[in-house]
Amino acid sequence: MADRSLTHLDPLGGARMVDVTPKEPTHRRALARCRVWMAPETTEKVASNAITKGDVLGTARIAGIQAAKRTPDLIPMCHPLLVGAVHVNFTIGDDYVEVESQVETVDRTGVEMEALTACAVAALTIYDMCKSADRSMVIGELALWEKTGGSRGPWRRTSLDEH
Amino acid sequence: MADRSLTHLDPLGGARMVDVTPKEPTHRRALARCRVWMAPETTEKVASNAITKGDVLGTARIAGIQAAKRTPDLIPMCHPLLVGAVHVNFTIGDDYVEVESQVETVDRTGVEMEALTACAVAALTIYDMCKSADRSMVIGELALWEKTGGSRGPWRRTSLDEH
Amino acid sequence: MADRSLTHLDPLGGARMVDVTPKEPTHRRALARCRVWMAPETTEKVASNAITKGDVLGTARIAGIQAAKRTPDLIPMCHPLLVGAVHVNFTIGDDYVEVESQVETVDRTGVEMEALTACAVAALTIYDMCKSADRSMVIGELALWEKTGGSRGPWRRTSLDEH
Amino acid sequence: MADRSLTHLDPLGGARMVDVTPKEPTHRRALARCRVWMAPETTEKVASNAITKGDVLGTARIAGIQAAKRTPDLIPMCHPLLVGAVHVNFTIGDDYVEVESQVETVDRTGVEMEALTACAVAALTIYDMCKSADRSMVIGELALWEKTGGSRGPWRRTSLDEH
Amino acid sequence: MADRSLTHLDPLGGARMVDVTPKEPTHRRALARCRVWMAPETTEKVASNAITKGDVLGTARIAGIQAAKRTPDLIPMCHPLLVGAVHVNFTIGDDYVEVESQVETVDRTGVEMEALTACAVAALTIYDMCKSADRSMVIGELALWEKTGGSRGPWRRTSLDEH
Amino acid sequence: MADRSLTHLDPLGGARMVDVTPKEPTHRRALARCRVWMAPETTEKVASNAITKGDVLGTARIAGIQAAKRTPDLIPMCHPLLVGAVHVNFTIGDDYVEVESQVETVDRTGVEMEALTACAVAALTIYDMCKSADRSMVIGELALWEKTGGSRGPWRRTSLDEH
Repeated sequence: MADRSLTHLDPLGGARMVDVTPKEPTHRRALARCRVWMAPETTEKVASNAITKGDVLGTARIAGIQAAKRTPDLIPMCHPLLVGAVHVNFTIGDDYVEVESQVETVDRTGVEMEALTACAVAALTIYDMCKSADRSMVIGELALWEKTGGSRGPWRRTSLDEH
Repeated sequence: MADRSLTHLDPLGGARMVDVTPKEPTHRRALARCRVWMAPETTEKVASNAITKGDVLGTARIAGIQAAKRTPDLIPMCHPLLVGAVHVNFTIGDDYVEVESQVETVDRTGVEMEALTACAVAALTIYDMCKSADRSMVIGELALWEKTGGSRGPWRRTSLDEH
Repeated sequence: MADRSLTHLDPLGGARMVDVTPKEPTHRRALARCRVWMAPETTEKVASNAITKGDVLGTARIAGIQAAKRTPDLIPMCHPLLVGAVHVNFTIGDDYVEVESQVETVDRTGVEMEALTACAVAALTIYDMCKSADRSMVIGELALWEKTGGSRGPWRRTSLDEH
Repeated sequence: MADRSLTHLDPLGGARMVDVTPKEPTHRRALARCRVWMAPETTEKVASNAITKGDVLGTARIAGIQAAKRTPDLIPMCHPLLVGAVHVNFTIGDDYVEVESQVETVDRTGVEMEALTACAVAALTIYDMCKSADRSMVIGELALWEKTGGSRGPWRRTSLDEH
Repeated sequence: MADRSLTHLDPLGGARMVDVTPKEPTHRRALARCRVWMAPETTEKVASNAITKGDVLGTARIAGIQAAKRTPDLIPMCHPLLVGAVHVNFTIGDDYVEVESQVETVDRTGVEMEALTACAVAALTIYDMCKSADRSMVIGELALWEKTGGSRGPWRRTSLDEH
Repeated sequence: MADRSLTHLDPLGGARMVDVTPKEPTHRRALARCRVWMAPETTEKVASNAITKGDVLGTARIAGIQAAKRTPDLIPMCHPLLVGAVHVNFTIGDDYVEVESQVETVDRTGVEMEALTACAVAALTIYDMCKSADRSMVIGELALWEKTGGSRGPWRRTSLDEH
């Protein structure tokens, strides 16, 4: 056993939060979207504010904004940063609610995880408020659509089929 | 303006956390799944632990378990409860990683939001750790698959097309 | 200095979280209220949803409900408990918005701090959303109005002058 | 129903976290105060450290400082920022304890919500520690008194009657 | 690659939060201690409340109590539970401050992690408040000393050399 | 009693978060270490990933990284800052696991509390995962080893006996 003593574990494979301190703070923006698929009766109730648990989209918007601020507390290797603006909006389709979030900051690291997390938590909140009315819901198409700022330059998704 | 004074706002439409205190605590269980779609090269890197940010699935598992415990802090109208068991596991397909989470408790309210939140945050963590390698990822098919306990009895999903 | 060594500090005066484990869980309820005093022009904007930061009362309601759940994390000697129901509602007067919160639980300790904290954070949220329109706001009259359950029996406040 | 499909919800009325990224970081300071009204016997117990739950003002000071740091987590549309200094102090009157908090930062947005939140949570902590001795307490007069830094220049309240 | 598809990852080795739902809630108690070793001049300053950052032990006591409540949020595989009592006390020696914490609950799982976490965070707080006066501090001897309740019966440590 | 009225409490002795706003942000780094003493059988199980609760060191690494980000929420007088990099690694000895954490930032205040907190929480996580196998564990030797950046210049510990 002695030979095991004092041997440094190989840190390869061990998760790490990579160093962003050499980077300069720049303006960064990210836009993400997802959809909550549901029965057409449910989208009608959401649209007419007839869900008994209360205002679905108003609650989901706030949950999404709050989640953007908590992203580094949820995603272990995410760097903390100070979000400078968060918007969460919704489109109601026949059998889905689409969530769109946009996050901006001036920082050393990007905000795509913040935008994706805002979408995911807003979608989960929609699910939570509608679940007694509709057990069939599915959350999908959670993806980054735009990203600006940072050394790799702007990026834009043109379709979900890119993956 | 005097007639506006002292008028109680109609609380209909206002979000509320519904009363669960009349319910008896019972054993409850929920199972949820989702998929992170990615390039086949990325699933290979995940499987061989070759992602430079570190152990993707180990990190995602812990993020998912921690998120299950924080669900009522993320989802505004969710009741707090004490999760009694959380498991998060993964299946690697050709062009996706599937996340499965199972949560159990003995409480007055169900754990489906905890199971869905665990899946969502584990998927976001996979995304975060792989995003420098693959910008095309999409998170989808986040759905409840099983639910037992509570007054409405057991429920099981048979396909994603149910919605 | 030797005589100081090993002397137990007198714990009197030291804050403690008192032991509630010998108590039996019972149904408990608390009702609290406070007011945000503001210019009449501001109450009109709140009532007509004309505040540029967005839906003031909807946001404040959610902030209050979330704060009720976080009470033991904010108030150091408060026992953690699982709130079973939270309602936050509002009355708009000529020059104030009144916040009312009601919290219920089945637990070993009461929920008056949860009800008061929900009111305080809802009021602070109203302040935050209106502050660019009105610098004169004052939050006041934060008080418990009703409390039921627990060994000391029901209690009801009849006026603010009781203090 | 087809005409509802793909219609963007009007985001007006939807809460948003406004964009502060174009602003330059400047030194900012805010000072807030509130009072916890209580029976004269209770102020005497607070002053003489005779409250059985322990050191009331020491506990309230720490709760207030911690709450200042958590303000953006409590108030949904509040921007996160890094507080650079927080002081919480107390004055004991015949039938009240006055709480005063001062917060400083170098950031793109002001710290008045941080100062007000520190006061509110310190006051709630005083209430929590004294409530078994005095059921009559009322928290009031929570207001901003000074604010410096930012584009609108310094501001100072001269009396509570300004609202 | 096809053979990798749909292969369930062996969950052995994957962290899990074990199932405590079959257990009955019982009264449980744990007692932990640790020491912050420091220069004798520093213990004198702590004892005479002469540390410029303020009341060291009062602040550490509150930090420890708050940390006990947050244990499941810090320690990934720890079950959430509702602590029913927390005490944190101190003994000042010639060249150390000893921290002792005791936690009680009625739950399905023990509170030893809560007691150890309370000690660790109280010790870190002492370190933080004294570090500008003394760079030599070392935290050590963090150990469980007593544990009662649960299926394995009471346990008591008799010395640190047991390990 | 009148003479007590309006007397400002002497704030000396009251804890405060000192003002760092006059400082300039600089690159700062801190390195801390601690040890979890355990039975040799337990270190073998940790090394061979044979602990039934799952991957001990992988879980501890993530817990430590997450704790570094939460340090100002745990340690009351600690300034919030944005960590730019966190590494947590381990060495397995005959009868101990050594934890080493390194934290970097560009900020107005140092990161030694972040490095120490990461070590402490990683060590507590190791303890939690091994405690059903080994009741004798003791956490010790938690100390700062290196610190660079800031007005006082670099500092390096040469032995634990310095205290």
